[in-house]
Amino acid sequence: MTTSSNPPNSAAPNQTSGMWGGRFSEATDAFVAEFTASVQFDQRFYKQDIAGSIAHATMLAKVGVLTEAERDDIIEGLSTIRAEIEAGTFEWRIDLEDVHMNIESRLTQRIGITGKKLHTGRSRNDQVATDIRLYLRDEIDDILGLLERLQKGLLGLAAKNVNTIMPGFTHLQTAQPVTFGHHLLAWFEMLVRDTERLQDCRKRVNRMPLGSAALAGTTYPIDRAYTAELLGFEAVSENSLDAVSDRDFAIEFNAAASLIMMHLSRMSEELILWTSAQFKFVNIPDRFCTGSSIMPQKKNPDVPELIRGKSGRVFGDLVSLLTLMKGQPLAYNKDNQEDKEPLFDAIDTVRGSLMAFADMIPALVPNVEIMREAALRGFSTATDLADYLVKKGVAFRDAHEIVGKAVALGVAEEKDLSELTLEQLQQFSDLITADVFDKALTLEASVNARDHIGGTSPKQVEAAIARAHKRLEQLYA
Amino acid sequence: MTTSSNPPNSAAPNQTSGMWGGRFSEATDAFVAEFTASVQFDQRFYKQDIAGSIAHATMLAKVGVLTEAERDDIIEGLSTIRAEIEAGTFEWRIDLEDVHMNIESRLTQRIGITGKKLHTGRSRNDQVATDIRLYLRDEIDDILGLLERLQKGLLGLAAKNVNTIMPGFTHLQTAQPVTFGHHLLAWFEMLVRDTERLQDCRKRVNRMPLGSAALAGTTYPIDRAYTAELLGFEAVSENSLDAVSDRDFAIEFNAAASLIMMHLSRMSEELILWTSAQFKFVNIPDRFCTGSSIMPQKKNPDVPELIRGKSGRVFGDLVSLLTLMKGQPLAYNKDNQEDKEPLFDAIDTVRGSLMAFADMIPALVPNVEIMREAALRGFSTATDLADYLVKKGVAFRDAHEIVGKAVALGVAEEKDLSELTLEQLQQFSDLITADVFDKALTLEASVNARDHIGGTSPKQVEAAIARAHKRLEQLYA
Amino acid sequence: MTTSSNPPNSAAPNQTSGMWGGRFSEATDAFVAEFTASVQFDQRFYKQDIAGSIAHATMLAKVGVLTEAERDDIIEGLSTIRAEIEAGTFEWRIDLEDVHMNIESRLTQRIGITGKKLHTGRSRNDQVATDIRLYLRDEIDDILGLLERLQKGLLGLAAKNVNTIMPGFTHLQTAQPVTFGHHLLAWFEMLVRDTERLQDCRKRVNRMPLGSAALAGTTYPIDRAYTAELLGFEAVSENSLDAVSDRDFAIEFNAAASLIMMHLSRMSEELILWTSAQFKFVNIPDRFCTGSSIMPQKKNPDVPELIRGKSGRVFGDLVSLLTLMKGQPLAYNKDNQEDKEPLFDAIDTVRGSLMAFADMIPALVPNVEIMREAALRGFSTATDLADYLVKKGVAFRDAHEIVGKAVALGVAEEKDLSELTLEQLQQFSDLITADVFDKALTLEASVNARDHIGGTSPKQVEAAIARAHKRLEQLYA
Amino acid sequence: MTTSSNPPNSAAPNQTSGMWGGRFSEATDAFVAEFTASVQFDQRFYKQDIAGSIAHATMLAKVGVLTEAERDDIIEGLSTIRAEIEAGTFEWRIDLEDVHMNIESRLTQRIGITGKKLHTGRSRNDQVATDIRLYLRDEIDDILGLLERLQKGLLGLAAKNVNTIMPGFTHLQTAQPVTFGHHLLAWFEMLVRDTERLQDCRKRVNRMPLGSAALAGTTYPIDRAYTAELLGFEAVSENSLDAVSDRDFAIEFNAAASLIMMHLSRMSEELILWTSAQFKFVNIPDRFCTGSSIMPQKKNPDVPELIRGKSGRVFGDLVSLLTLMKGQPLAYNKDNQEDKEPLFDAIDTVRGSLMAFADMIPALVPNVEIMREAALRGFSTATDLADYLVKKGVAFRDAHEIVGKAVALGVAEEKDLSELTLEQLQQFSDLITADVFDKALTLEASVNARDHIGGTSPKQVEAAIARAHKRLEQLYA
Repeated sequence: MTTSSNPPNSAAPNQTSGMWGGRFSEATDAFVAEFTASVQFDQRFYKQDIAGSIAHATMLAKVGVLTEAERDDIIEGLSTIRAEIEAGTFEWRIDLEDVHMNIESRLTQRIGITGKKLHTGRSRNDQVATDIRLYLRDEIDDILGLLERLQKGLLGLAAKNVNTIMPGFTHLQTAQPVTFGHHLLAWFEMLVRDTERLQDCRKRVNRMPLGSAALAGTTYPIDRAYTAELLGFEAVSENSLDAVSDRDFAIEFNAAASLIMMHLSRMSEELILWTSAQFKFVNIPDRFCTGSSIMPQKKNPDVPELIRGKSGRVFGDLVSLLTLMKGQPLAYNKDNQEDKEPLFDAIDTVRGSLMAFADMIPALVPNVEIMREAALRGFSTATDLADYLVKKGVAFRDAHEIVGKAVALGVAEEKDLSELTLEQLQQFSDLITADVFDKALTLEASVNARDHIGGTSPKQVEAAIARAHKRLEQLYA
Repeated sequence: MTTSSNPPNSAAPNQTSGMWGGRFSEATDAFVAEFTASVQFDQRFYKQDIAGSIAHATMLAKVGVLTEAERDDIIEGLSTIRAEIEAGTFEWRIDLEDVHMNIESRLTQRIGITGKKLHTGRSRNDQVATDIRLYLRDEIDDILGLLERLQKGLLGLAAKNVNTIMPGFTHLQTAQPVTFGHHLLAWFEMLVRDTERLQDCRKRVNRMPLGSAALAGTTYPIDRAYTAELLGFEAVSENSLDAVSDRDFAIEFNAAASLIMMHLSRMSEELILWTSAQFKFVNIPDRFCTGSSIMPQKKNPDVPELIRGKSGRVFGDLVSLLTLMKGQPLAYNKDNQEDKEPLFDAIDTVRGSLMAFADMIPALVPNVEIMREAALRGFSTATDLADYLVKKGVAFRDAHEIVGKAVALGVAEEKDLSELTLEQLQQFSDLITADVFDKALTLEASVNARDHIGGTSPKQVEAAIARAHKRLEQLYA
Repeated sequence: MTTSSNPPNSAAPNQTSGMWGGRFSEATDAFVAEFTASVQFDQRFYKQDIAGSIAHATMLAKVGVLTEAERDDIIEGLSTIRAEIEAGTFEWRIDLEDVHMNIESRLTQRIGITGKKLHTGRSRNDQVATDIRLYLRDEIDDILGLLERLQKGLLGLAAKNVNTIMPGFTHLQTAQPVTFGHHLLAWFEMLVRDTERLQDCRKRVNRMPLGSAALAGTTYPIDRAYTAELLGFEAVSENSLDAVSDRDFAIEFNAAASLIMMHLSRMSEELILWTSAQFKFVNIPDRFCTGSSIMPQKKNPDVPELIRGKSGRVFGDLVSLLTLMKGQPLAYNKDNQEDKEPLFDAIDTVRGSLMAFADMIPALVPNVEIMREAALRGFSTATDLADYLVKKGVAFRDAHEIVGKAVALGVAEEKDLSELTLEQLQQFSDLITADVFDKALTLEASVNARDHIGGTSPKQVEAAIARAHKRLEQLYA
Repeated sequence: MTTSSNPPNSAAPNQTSGMWGGRFSEATDAFVAEFTASVQFDQRFYKQDIAGSIAHATMLAKVGVLTEAERDDIIEGLSTIRAEIEAGTFEWRIDLEDVHMNIESRLTQRIGITGKKLHTGRSRNDQVATDIRLYLRDEIDDILGLLERLQKGLLGLAAKNVNTIMPGFTHLQTAQPVTFGHHLLAWFEMLVRDTERLQDCRKRVNRMPLGSAALAGTTYPIDRAYTAELLGFEAVSENSLDAVSDRDFAIEFNAAASLIMMHLSRMSEELILWTSAQFKFVNIPDRFCTGSSIMPQKKNPDVPELIRGKSGRVFGDLVSLLTLMKGQPLAYNKDNQEDKEPLFDAIDTVRGSLMAFADMIPALVPNVEIMREAALRGFSTATDLADYLVKKGVAFRDAHEIVGKAVALGVAEEKDLSELTLEQLQQFSDLITADVFDKALTLEASVNARDHIGGTSPKQVEAAIARAHKRLEQLYA
């Protein structure tokens, strides 16, 4: 990274050391040139780099550093280059090190000496910091769009399954019945927090470093507020040293991305369990699965498995960036060139994973009968029987003992509590009356009784879905 | 973790398996009992656990599940227990597994059967989730207080050093002169973003899981909004399954804590460099250092070294929590017991490190002359000379060549550019006139010229400090 | 950490700064003293610290730096102190900073000026590096003992289940039948590699830094080989700067510990699945489980869940140490004080987890009938039918088609392949004869056919167990 | 990953679902096909995949499953495909998912039905596990070669600097003089342990999974020992389930790679310090540096900065793989497809970084005079003066006081101890005689006195270099 706030001398593009001229007595080693170049991966910034340059040139003309004609030449030249890149005809050169020098060099080639004036009042240090923020801002917006689509998919599936009953687990042991719609809303809530985190992160991404130059600001009469307005930044950075050297915003993004992947990994874990022969709660459509060339019965839940695996990748990207920054003195150090790939990898992984989930979730098919059957087994309403007795005035200690005995009978008879007769139940307590089946022992009674905000009753789940649609509107307003 | 929304039967506290009774044919293995207990570390929640129980009892009385007399007995009993704990007379028992059972068991011992009614309508799953949020909320508030103190210390030191000039570095090579006040404001900006992140995190911490019971909600007519109001929560959680099982808020905190530590580690790196014999830019008062028993000249910057080292610890805590959650199916699993120690360790480390910095920063003594001397060396104003020539109409290419030659002369004469005579400079360009020293070559000219928002000029630094004080007022309003 | 190779002056133990005397104009800040002290956690080294000091004193007497009487006084004094520590009567003092100064200060208190001579020719830098290696060596040996016990437990359980058939899974979908003994041997193999890694690590731990003094060696005529022999070290470190500053051996241990925990976490994941209501493959005895206060049916696999959770903790410890070291210049920096807690935590976690597994594994009870039943479902022998046809000369493409049709019939009839009649099968190919049941379709035929080293056939599993016992003998020779 | 031990049906290569046929009612979604494909990155295995297939075919012919003619056709076909790939004429197809199916499909295209027979007795599960081990083994060998070159470069530079004296640091404060050769040997020692670790890891990499088939072994009469011999494997894996599902060898490699990068990062930190204007201890030749387009004085140590930054990347790769494996049940899951990129990235980063260091180290130029000057400042021989007095019979306490006073005089007079006159020194103790300069106060006296294995004296450094050459011979024998 140069530390200049002036146009670099790129007279001799095929000698890398040409950029810094006479101080050097030998050319850069060829292996070193490639080892230290970044154009292989930072070319994905080209759109933001050009947009930033156009805004910079526009500002320079406004303050009189460039003429209007120079500005127009630059803008036209950059627009042509963007078209070349998008048409695949632009020749990226490793000896020009990075996306910035590649574009600037081509600009000068096209429009002559004016091209070099573009770099007045900035340096690659604030330029790259600006590009990365513009790029990340765009990606965050795309990811928010995918999150919204997935969230709506979850609400749609939940709406169809307000009354679908399945066993709720703790410790992967049958605990109490819940509705499938309620379970899906748990996933929805996780993702809503992920949205909030990305939006909070976006505020901190959307501040403009441009104008910080190499590290100390520039001697030209720049108008940073104007450039920021042109680029849609909410504010300009307050300190030039900080602006060119910190990458905390990228780490914050990778942390938010890690939480998204953690949540998708948990959902994946459940989908993998649910599609196993032992659970069979859910079918994933064939188009999201792969099979085996020999075993016709095999249908593998590849997508959730892969996403569960990909969570590790994004955690690793987070660790990479934290480690990268942790001991760097101010201001810019070459270490920071390593900020890009772990950020790009996290972005790509989160995007792909969300896209796959957003496609797959609405297509899930619950096996309603099998879920219900599983909920019926395992004495999942034992808690409800105890609550029933307590409400009839039985002391808790006695209620627990009564239920324990009833369960023991059920185990012996291989029947669930709801399958015992009233007579059988009454031998443990004469407070048990015929209403026990409706009020406590059936799955419906159990879920319906959890009738408060956050509870699993169909009524509450319906209300929660309605609230959720309104919350989404506000969230993505 | 039990999955009950009813009071547990703790008849036989000295047999761990007593809590779950007849299903078990053998007592818990003694090693297993200790291996799986959490009271050794979760007792630090006791204050929040008791506050949560008092609010819960108050709500239960409001909705008629407890009588007012029962509520009062419970509150009095819990208040006494809190006093016992704070007096150090409370006996913590491993066989009672966790802070919740220890306190409840003692409550029942003191006030009898009413003590057991406290657990009506909740389970340990939502209880612990509530405790951890209350606890973390309190800790975040303390950490915010420390951040504010450190930020003010930085502003105070910066205000004294608005005109102190030092070399600004890129690649740890002398680049351009900056003011020490400006450099300190870079640190300030980092910490402001840390404050914002903690405040954003706090919003998501401050939502109440209580009422989610084991996983599905409870059958009692609870009033969650009332309990939330009593405990100062901003909202109730929207989904019971999610509320008892996710720990993303703790991970988000650990990520924010990692960024704080990353920033402190960078500042530490600079302090260690600056106190070395080779830099000598800054003195750290003796009370923050240690020496050597034999080498009287040694004064070691222990505090920044230790904090640089402690950053790794908090990064590790973050990785622990991410790994912990990544493959868990809903709802509560015992894995989650491991959420506490990495969170506590991150909290403790951040608190201690911020406290040390908040004490140390205002006491730093810059060696103003040495800093200035270092800035004078290394041709740090070469950029300014080029800018000077460009503004006089020299084409950049020529300006660069002229400066290059002047530097070469300086190297040969062992003089900085500002130490060359006007005649010497003019031999490279007759556009150089006597004003070059004031306008470009002196350190003051160089820093004064960077006169825009974010620039290093004393005028801008003063304005930035004034703005910073106002921003702090808003931030901590 | 002092940088002296001479006895420190600890004249004024209640003034921390007393150790480095006149250079300092103020005492250490009380908070700083506690923040930078390590005695709270490094006292667990006391045994190794004393053993190291005794060996050092013995060597000093051998080379004539101490008299024999001085040596004897020191050894007796240290032995008494060890007894005090083990009796709990030793008073640890934070103002004395670390375990080394606490013990040395007490030694001087007991035996007078001779106590100070002990520190001749060493410094705390090489002393702590020696202690940590001695300590870790002891812990590795304990962990190896636990691994051996667990490995033998696995072989014992496998030997009982050479003929127990269960479904083998890929993608958590039924794939092919395997024997439970074979599955347990997969776990055994993982742990054998863990043993190898620990033994490789131990070689690098077992090299002696003592004699490196502060960083450069000492001017006294020390005999490092003799001290190494007394302490059981295999070699002395070759370079003093390296010996006092690197902690790669601790990171290597934490990496090996992470792999152990990764393996235990995978086994735990399987145990949790296998004890779920949906699988029911295995019972874990009650003493390793917890229940619920209200749901008598609940038996939670707490031990595997907790260990699965604890894996994240050890991964975090590894990250902490890597981050800690990554940017440190030579030689010792205070950062390195942070090497201990992540190492201790990894040691403790691995020990506890292995102990729990070593106790639990031999007590597992497979539900042989349920496993078999699960293997029968899911067309797990489809591969075998295709192999059967290929061996009879059918082209693979045709064999696959034939099997596909047979499976389709099975799906329609709700029967496994082995439950179809010969006539039914023959309608797809007349090459299928009565031997198909024995040779291909039964579970026994399927597992028996995989009869090569590493295969799942009972014969191979028996042979593998026999080899495994011999390998253990060699491994722990 | 298919779970077949038979040749897959790849009749319809442009329909991905063609591989598993009739069970599926719809084709794989296009996005899903690309999201789950691996050929983009696993094609770098092609050489190992083909070598493995040739050995497998050779073995199948030996045991009679293939005819000799079939074997020859396969080998010739594969050799041609390898040539196509290396010529760049091979068409990689995403719809064929991975490197294995791409090559097999092309083989069948070339040689017809025989091509399909190649997959007899194996599955992609054991095939990919074999490929990755062969690939990693080759890469380890290359990395060992780079390590050896770098180690020899260090010995060469050390040999030239046996008598070059520099300040040794602790806490980045001047501590005691050391020789530059000794310092370089500290780096050498770190790398020797890295070599040992890679060699230990290689043992565990070099075991053959082939023959494990999908998960349980195969029904064909394979001869695994023979295949292993052909491929240079030291042993066959002992358990099929373990062999196809564990990736601990890759994690072990990434841990070893992380330690290499940690060491290179520490060396880089020192090089960056040493090339700063404040230290100036060392010059890095221009070809390893970059400059600035405007500041002719700038020469940035890009290579060490970048490598310091790249350490974070490899730590992240390690975390990715640990997270990936931690909760997977046996046997193969799709998660494991994510094992490759973090492994490849670690390999590439370590290779590039070692290559850059191996080139750069021999070219470093120490500034001998500046180093010496720095060592003279800072009272670095104070320890030696105290030792001198102790050896003359002064009690340590008194010696320390005497030195303290002498240092105070030096501070006042702005002179180092060796610059004080004998008279000045004698005013503190008449035991100080003229020999104090030769025996204690000069830099040469100080370093010469540390004359034991591991000490910094030139004599010891020379001996250490001689031993090091012999150790390298053994290490790479």
